[in-house]
Amino acid sequence: MRVEMDAMTMAAVEFAEKNQRRFVEELKELLRIPSVSTDPERAGDVRRAAEFVAAELKRIGMQHVRLVETITSERPGGHPLVVADWLEAEGAPTVLCYGHYDVQPAEPLDEWKSPPFEPTERDGNIYARGAVDDKGQMWMHVKALESLFAAGGGKLPVNVRVVVEGEEEVGGEGIAAYVREHGEELKADVALVSDTEMFAADLPTLCVGLRGMIYTEIEARGARTDLHSGMYGGAAPNPFVALAQVIVQLKDAEGKILIPGFYDKVATPTDAELKAWKALPFDEEHYRETEVGSVSLTGEAGYSVLERTWARPTLDVHGMPGGFTGAGAKTVIPAKAVAKVSMRLVPDMTPAESFAQYKAYVERLCPKGIVLEVRMIHSGDPIVVSTDNEYVRAATDAMHTVFGKETVFVRGGGSIPIVGDFVRELKIPTVMMGFGLPDDNLHAPNEKFHLANFYRGIESIVRFLSGVGA
Amino acid sequence: MRVEMDAMTMAAVEFAEKNQRRFVEELKELLRIPSVSTDPERAGDVRRAAEFVAAELKRIGMQHVRLVETITSERPGGHPLVVADWLEAEGAPTVLCYGHYDVQPAEPLDEWKSPPFEPTERDGNIYARGAVDDKGQMWMHVKALESLFAAGGGKLPVNVRVVVEGEEEVGGEGIAAYVREHGEELKADVALVSDTEMFAADLPTLCVGLRGMIYTEIEARGARTDLHSGMYGGAAPNPFVALAQVIVQLKDAEGKILIPGFYDKVATPTDAELKAWKALPFDEEHYRETEVGSVSLTGEAGYSVLERTWARPTLDVHGMPGGFTGAGAKTVIPAKAVAKVSMRLVPDMTPAESFAQYKAYVERLCPKGIVLEVRMIHSGDPIVVSTDNEYVRAATDAMHTVFGKETVFVRGGGSIPIVGDFVRELKIPTVMMGFGLPDDNLHAPNEKFHLANFYRGIESIVRFLSGVGA
Repeated sequence: MRVEMDAMTMAAVEFAEKNQRRFVEELKELLRIPSVSTDPERAGDVRRAAEFVAAELKRIGMQHVRLVETITSERPGGHPLVVADWLEAEGAPTVLCYGHYDVQPAEPLDEWKSPPFEPTERDGNIYARGAVDDKGQMWMHVKALESLFAAGGGKLPVNVRVVVEGEEEVGGEGIAAYVREHGEELKADVALVSDTEMFAADLPTLCVGLRGMIYTEIEARGARTDLHSGMYGGAAPNPFVALAQVIVQLKDAEGKILIPGFYDKVATPTDAELKAWKALPFDEEHYRETEVGSVSLTGEAGYSVLERTWARPTLDVHGMPGGFTGAGAKTVIPAKAVAKVSMRLVPDMTPAESFAQYKAYVERLCPKGIVLEVRMIHSGDPIVVSTDNEYVRAATDAMHTVFGKETVFVRGGGSIPIVGDFVRELKIPTVMMGFGLPDDNLHAPNEKFHLANFYRGIESIVRFLSGVGA
Repeated sequence: MRVEMDAMTMAAVEFAEKNQRRFVEELKELLRIPSVSTDPERAGDVRRAAEFVAAELKRIGMQHVRLVETITSERPGGHPLVVADWLEAEGAPTVLCYGHYDVQPAEPLDEWKSPPFEPTERDGNIYARGAVDDKGQMWMHVKALESLFAAGGGKLPVNVRVVVEGEEEVGGEGIAAYVREHGEELKADVALVSDTEMFAADLPTLCVGLRGMIYTEIEARGARTDLHSGMYGGAAPNPFVALAQVIVQLKDAEGKILIPGFYDKVATPTDAELKAWKALPFDEEHYRETEVGSVSLTGEAGYSVLERTWARPTLDVHGMPGGFTGAGAKTVIPAKAVAKVSMRLVPDMTPAESFAQYKAYVERLCPKGIVLEVRMIHSGDPIVVSTDNEYVRAATDAMHTVFGKETVFVRGGGSIPIVGDFVRELKIPTVMMGFGLPDDNLHAPNEKFHLANFYRGIESIVRFLSGVGA
């Protein structure tokens, strides 16, 4: 069995190598579909991306390929899940492969060197919105499965379920409900998620913790209608000034969040974890210069950058719509303005409790003449996953073969809400094996995916799936 | 002479009354031109509005009607002045009629009950962007002149110069340069400006003071590119948080401006002026409820609303472009964000000194990890005009005849920068006789002009011009 499996793995790896260019061209086709899930006008494109993925899953040999609608009366804009399985590897474990086909908005468009939805290869990278997050990484799963099907004469070495969602960038409510209500259709022994990054180029990485989040809006309303600042300046409340007064009371100049009780449930990483982080090849000055590019870094005093971005809660303002934002001058006191504010949460905080603390606090801060409304846009749980199981060993073995190096265990600062649902609802471990790079410009202009990592990712997944089935 | 003049005045008033509907229909044609001076894409429309005004001035009998270009290499977006004169009233004084044909942007469009550039009559008002500010009021001048030409057989009772600018809403640099460099072409004894409002319906009003302003942008730059708040939150500086930290240090929660030295040159109104303001029919609670519509008013403690809006400097934030302002969620830490901040200035402050104080102070406030840039967008001087001259008496006499009431003297909170230039460069008094109403929604959605005031304004101007010439 072992010999036969090794031969099949080798054949799959060879198949993947021979078909690299075709895999890239297919990915480009998918990247051309502007499946921006937060934009209601893109709903048709989002569906088109789902259909594209479903058609390919069917073509390579997956079974029961279907779109599962997530639209409900409360969520008229829900985007479909792509669900499929292949369960004929009797006695073998079942791997649930997860990815998402939706992408972030591409704005600001004028900062892209090539158009976000016209994938372009430069210097061994493919540039496009979604290249690494997550279309490119999800496509690694599909292409690893195709390679294994090809090598196995239409059979896989493990049982596989696939679920690909279209709402990861907008909170993933649709898949969360599906996991809660139809968990049996995703029944598996382990989940494989490739939506994270490597700690450094050539350094195989497993992500074992993720921050959660709450994404909110604070709307400040003053006058009934927009007013002329000459005529009313000095008497009418200004919603932007009011929001500034609220924001500075949310986080102090040293990065400490001022919401009462906010830090109460924050768990400190284990000594072993903190020690391992210290051993990682991390140069703060290099990080500041090459990744952030600001004159200095910010954040809570007394914590390293890795602690601040992996194990500490944070608060950011993403945009402040309202008033006049065009070129030139308009002397308006706007009737209302909004601050888009999110907080990253860490174990053992919960979105519900953190939002309640935040909302109550903001409402108490309400400046004179202003009416505030605090809204939750979406949320995700923070999680830490176990590293002590055979699936993590299969993943580290696979990557050791491909990269020739030991895997490092890191956490991610971002949220992948579904991982929490897998842990909570399906009660299965998750292997977060991602192949992005720190400079891949996730959620930013000029997002890219390093093609060498796309190929190594496919090979790693081929070997991981074979390893789990062995 | 006096009898002949009275007969001619009566004939002009009759002509204006008989032609009211035509005057309104012509005004609608002008209002349909979206001459938004701050929008580079509207440059063609702005020019079309200038040509419309010039053609009408020519048709009614004005001489030397011409467009004066204001474009220079530093100001490639300059809009033309419309200049004309009629100087055959030998021995009579010369009145310089000023107005502007440009308008504010119409945004937010979804709050207009009828489209901003499709003038619509409702309840005795005409609704459109520019209806009262200033196309409707400028058109009163043109129609008063037409009525006097008609009554006088092609002659006017006074010498008249007309200058109509297209950059009032963007700082008026073009006309300021023209006044400085070609003042002799505007040589007059008095300027007539109708770009202000009446203190209350039916209460004839002259404006005798205006606040100045500086309109600025503060740009805050943090990271080199937009970053994912999950990955970098806790390490990367947030430009919106930084701007909030700056804004709260510009103005305290009680409305006091915190810029060092800012109040040093503020002149207190005379006791007589303060006493007259107290006698005006002003109900603060009614003003809050009907004009502002906020839960309470704001502003410096210890000053009345009229003092705060007429005689005290103020600071407002008009918009904060940058980051993600669309619907839904985008977890971006934007590389940069901007705050559009303006300050209203009162006598004896100067824009140059106030801006220097502000810029130096803001630069000192620069938050960690952030680079700030402070830019002046435009400015205007504060002014107080004399009330003790024959032209003010001609204006109060004219309005007494039309309204049957004594004129009140008020100040305006807004800026009409050109009035300062007339005082400084041409050394002539200005009569600010405006016919807007407090609820005309200047610079806001659903701007309107009360048609009864349009007609009374024309008659008042006919009588004023006759009175100056008598």
